[in-house]
Amino acid sequence: MTLGQPNQRRYYLSDIPLEEARDRFYTALRDAGLLEAMPPEVVPVATARGRVTSGPVWAAKSSPHYDAAAMDGIAVRAADTTGATETSPVTLAVNDPGQQAVWVDTGDPMPSGFDAVIMVEHLHKVGENHVSIMDPVAPWQHVRPLGEDIIATELVLTENHQLSPADLGACAAAGLAHLSVRRRPSVAIIPTGNELVPVGTDLQPGDIVEFNSIMLSAQLEEWGAVATVVDPVRDDFVAIRDAAIEALKTHDLVIINAGSSAGSEDYTALVVEELGELLVHGIAVRPGHPVVLGLARGKPLVGLPGYPVSTMLTAELLLQPLIARWLGQARGGQRPIVHAQITRKVTSSTGEDEFLRVKLGRVGERMVATPVQRGAGVIMSLVRADGLVKIPRFSEGMEAGAEVAVELLRPLAEVENTIVAIGSHDLTLDLMSSFLRRAPFGANLSSSHIGSLGGLIALRRGEAHLAGSHLLDETTGKYNLSYIERYLPQFPVVLVNLVGRVQGLMVRPGNPSGIHSLSDLMRPDVTFVNRQRGSGTRVLLDYKLGEMGADPEAVNGYLREEFSHLAVAATVSGGSADVGLGILSAARALGLEFIPLANEQYDLVIPRTHYESDLLQPLLALLISEEFRQAVHELGGYDISRMGQVQAEIG
Amino acid sequence: MTLGQPNQRRYYLSDIPLEEARDRFYTALRDAGLLEAMPPEVVPVATARGRVTSGPVWAAKSSPHYDAAAMDGIAVRAADTTGATETSPVTLAVNDPGQQAVWVDTGDPMPSGFDAVIMVEHLHKVGENHVSIMDPVAPWQHVRPLGEDIIATELVLTENHQLSPADLGACAAAGLAHLSVRRRPSVAIIPTGNELVPVGTDLQPGDIVEFNSIMLSAQLEEWGAVATVVDPVRDDFVAIRDAAIEALKTHDLVIINAGSSAGSEDYTALVVEELGELLVHGIAVRPGHPVVLGLARGKPLVGLPGYPVSTMLTAELLLQPLIARWLGQARGGQRPIVHAQITRKVTSSTGEDEFLRVKLGRVGERMVATPVQRGAGVIMSLVRADGLVKIPRFSEGMEAGAEVAVELLRPLAEVENTIVAIGSHDLTLDLMSSFLRRAPFGANLSSSHIGSLGGLIALRRGEAHLAGSHLLDETTGKYNLSYIERYLPQFPVVLVNLVGRVQGLMVRPGNPSGIHSLSDLMRPDVTFVNRQRGSGTRVLLDYKLGEMGADPEAVNGYLREEFSHLAVAATVSGGSADVGLGILSAARALGLEFIPLANEQYDLVIPRTHYESDLLQPLLALLISEEFRQAVHELGGYDISRMGQVQAEIG
Repeated sequence: MTLGQPNQRRYYLSDIPLEEARDRFYTALRDAGLLEAMPPEVVPVATARGRVTSGPVWAAKSSPHYDAAAMDGIAVRAADTTGATETSPVTLAVNDPGQQAVWVDTGDPMPSGFDAVIMVEHLHKVGENHVSIMDPVAPWQHVRPLGEDIIATELVLTENHQLSPADLGACAAAGLAHLSVRRRPSVAIIPTGNELVPVGTDLQPGDIVEFNSIMLSAQLEEWGAVATVVDPVRDDFVAIRDAAIEALKTHDLVIINAGSSAGSEDYTALVVEELGELLVHGIAVRPGHPVVLGLARGKPLVGLPGYPVSTMLTAELLLQPLIARWLGQARGGQRPIVHAQITRKVTSSTGEDEFLRVKLGRVGERMVATPVQRGAGVIMSLVRADGLVKIPRFSEGMEAGAEVAVELLRPLAEVENTIVAIGSHDLTLDLMSSFLRRAPFGANLSSSHIGSLGGLIALRRGEAHLAGSHLLDETTGKYNLSYIERYLPQFPVVLVNLVGRVQGLMVRPGNPSGIHSLSDLMRPDVTFVNRQRGSGTRVLLDYKLGEMGADPEAVNGYLREEFSHLAVAATVSGGSADVGLGILSAARALGLEFIPLANEQYDLVIPRTHYESDLLQPLLALLISEEFRQAVHELGGYDISRMGQVQAEIG
Repeated sequence: MTLGQPNQRRYYLSDIPLEEARDRFYTALRDAGLLEAMPPEVVPVATARGRVTSGPVWAAKSSPHYDAAAMDGIAVRAADTTGATETSPVTLAVNDPGQQAVWVDTGDPMPSGFDAVIMVEHLHKVGENHVSIMDPVAPWQHVRPLGEDIIATELVLTENHQLSPADLGACAAAGLAHLSVRRRPSVAIIPTGNELVPVGTDLQPGDIVEFNSIMLSAQLEEWGAVATVVDPVRDDFVAIRDAAIEALKTHDLVIINAGSSAGSEDYTALVVEELGELLVHGIAVRPGHPVVLGLARGKPLVGLPGYPVSTMLTAELLLQPLIARWLGQARGGQRPIVHAQITRKVTSSTGEDEFLRVKLGRVGERMVATPVQRGAGVIMSLVRADGLVKIPRFSEGMEAGAEVAVELLRPLAEVENTIVAIGSHDLTLDLMSSFLRRAPFGANLSSSHIGSLGGLIALRRGEAHLAGSHLLDETTGKYNLSYIERYLPQFPVVLVNLVGRVQGLMVRPGNPSGIHSLSDLMRPDVTFVNRQRGSGTRVLLDYKLGEMGADPEAVNGYLREEFSHLAVAATVSGGSADVGLGILSAARALGLEFIPLANEQYDLVIPRTHYESDLLQPLLALLISEEFRQAVHELGGYDISRMGQVQAEIG
């Protein structure tokens, strides 16, 4: 997209409900004969794991295909053993002419006329060629009869069955060296956009890394399709049209990503119209909206939106069922559901289905779901999420505490083994989450950054196992204690130190605005970026401004809030603010200069019940492990001398 | 293994408990430094789906890496819009020298000095180069700030994290073209045994298809390892030893399969002893037992038992955790658990942990678990099973109706969508289960064959949704009705016809024993194979023998019971019996000659509550579908004229 050109919108999207969009698309596909399962292809049985049978699988051979000895010992005729007892054993001639018994090993065919096996452990040798037995045996004892496992012609597997390791074994046992499976659907992805560059390119402003095709391919492969990404195409009608024509020749489905909206350089819908039938343009789904569904040259031709969360979500809603149908799965890819309580009020537009990403955690007896960022451009919201909550059209949202059904994006066992931290942000928490994934811990730490005060409130509401906090009491000069007493009355908690750290002003290298102390924030030529209310850093700022007798309103940028030290550092680094307040490690991470203002104490506030739970033990163990302390030390700017020490037990 | 050689057992297995075996093995592995996670390798991000991160992943770039317009429209300075209202709009110069506004598209970098975007929809054109607005805007409106999604240096993913499609997108967005992931463990499988032949070989008696390596490889690949199957080795100490030496050079783990017991031709334990340290020989697990665990040449060298269910189960119990550890997963592959009621009494040896394979079904409100075959050689038991139940050592088993914890082998949604049939066997049921897997049905039919009477009892106990039944009332000559009244009193059921079919005597081609009627069963030179008590076919036999006034005890083989028509046909086909009673389609399937004796009616007995449930509708629809009727007709020997017709509504 180029600057300086007035937008020329040709038309607007007409968002229709998801169900209606799906209905139009799938009806058209069915009418065009495009919902039939993929044709079969024949593959060696050893390579067929995960593939789907294209028809019923009947056994070619029986297994075993002969009556087989099931033990090491002798084959006998049961009738010959009648009457054997401890006091009058029966003696049998072995491997002699006119033999009564034949040595057999497990798996050997039963010699003709013999109908039972006696285990070697029950034999007593009598001379070279005779054995005696002390019990009679029943016919067919220790014989695996022909077909015990599988009988030739019997049904081994149904049609449309996804092949597991045991299935492959059974097919091979049934004499099937090859299996007839559904061909994998082949899908072409056409990335479009002048601004796209491959990952790894040295980025210029305006460049966008083309990563949607990487996600989409991975999704499609996960569903059983084969994805091909063609070279990115510029925002040019003819170029996109020609790429689509080419891709439609050799693929079962073609996806154009993006240009699916109705802006001046959005060509996907026009291309679909030119090549075939435009069925849907725009669906009332958030994230989602600009989706193009069509048929062209006898194939589905689809445009997906460019924001990555929208891309993934709409692919899943609209294309996953198609891939499943093509692979003979009437209902594919349903995720397990858990019920949870939502931790915050969520408002949603009544006009659209919204898919909320949430983090999950088992806190005490409750499963709690905490919404993560809702922006369609925030791919990290999908990385961080444990589940999806659908807020249906016609709903305005839900109140905090409401029960919601959550589609699980991770195994439930992993969710149950997750420590939920809500509160202040510190880089040490990130490091901790990575260390906890190592053997022998294997635990998960999910942390949400809503500020120190928010963390204490989350603890009170039973939404977290611990909260990171660095709240300075202006009157006592102590950290956290008075806040805990105020916000968590009657609530037994243990206060454990994580780190001491340095707060200070972050400026760009060379300190171009010449900032040396907090008083420079009052200069009209200096732009500040602030932290959100309730964060310990904001409390510190207000305290320091109060000490100076300064009016916060006079600080240029006081109202611009970011939610983490790194976000403040990034804002300064990017140049849209000149200075921010934050911790040394964040300044170092982004190569900023740092003017120290205060040492502060960063603690973990842990309710006693959780402090004593099995779940938290890996984390407490980590705090006193030399390896972790060393890694924190190496981040720089941290005082680890009291890490892991209990500061107070309250309540 | 060769016939005619006396067994020479060198020693006996000393089965030790599973926990002790695991402990010995893993302690030795840890002491030898063999439990460490695999070293990293670097792969392109686009190919990394499913791989596991070998360290924390930190963002190389921010995303967006500049302040970006989040809408199509104009970039402005928020301060310039102050005071705009509907009655006094503010007019802005666009793209002029001294410009107040600049056209931007979504994703464009914000021009320097501009701090907000106004959507194109909210603009009114005034001449060529001016627009007017009617509302003021706040700073940073419709701007995606630098780092909104990801900030350079922030933690994107923890160590030991398995990569999903969204994760790959986030890594690429963070500027990471390559990822450092754990190398896949490499595992060699050495199949041993003189009797082994590749699948697809024309089988001779004594040949065993080598399919364990196919299953094992598939299991290992599923766990994230790379499996290599070497050429099968004969039962020869030196050959096996040399193959092991060779494989140990280039693999992380070597598996010898089988020869792991203590028979005359079992060399695995000896090879481990010769090359290194034998840690365990024999574990008290059923199926399982002859397992060899050792270390040799600095690698784990393991022998797994030859019976396929034992192979798979012991691999899972002992090797899956090792592969998981190598891939940095402290707790790998835990399957979801459901609770169910076991339908039958199960006895188990107190000396061993037993892993019972069960079928599951939701019948009304209850989840029921029905054990399948327990033989270690019956790979179909794993194909048919929906779950595993562990019966711990020191337990003697459990009573029918006991609640058990079931490890799920299939998704719960699939289990919930399964129609459970217990009762008489008919090939039509197999065909039905395959047809039900097709679109639009997508249902599952799980059928257990325990005879008609067993089916009625299962219905009474609430263990099945329907029962196939063909019970002849000797006094009325009618089918099923009087049995339903006797066994299902006060139990509303609907009786639906499936097929009419022909019962008769099955003999080998050419009828070598010259059998022409039931009276030939009384001949001393004729061997019969019977069906189990409670089966409709057994009822028919007893009825016919009674008509003749014959003594069943005089029938040679009357006590030998098989559980299905096909099993009887296979026994006759294999030659260990001369004649059996069964249906025409089974005789045809195995190429037997058939002497018709009686036409009979085979019905489905369906409790009314299930008959009316959503679950059963696909099956009822199938019974009247032309495609299915045609397929049954083609099996031969079936009268489909009343298929799907309600015969009676009872109770």
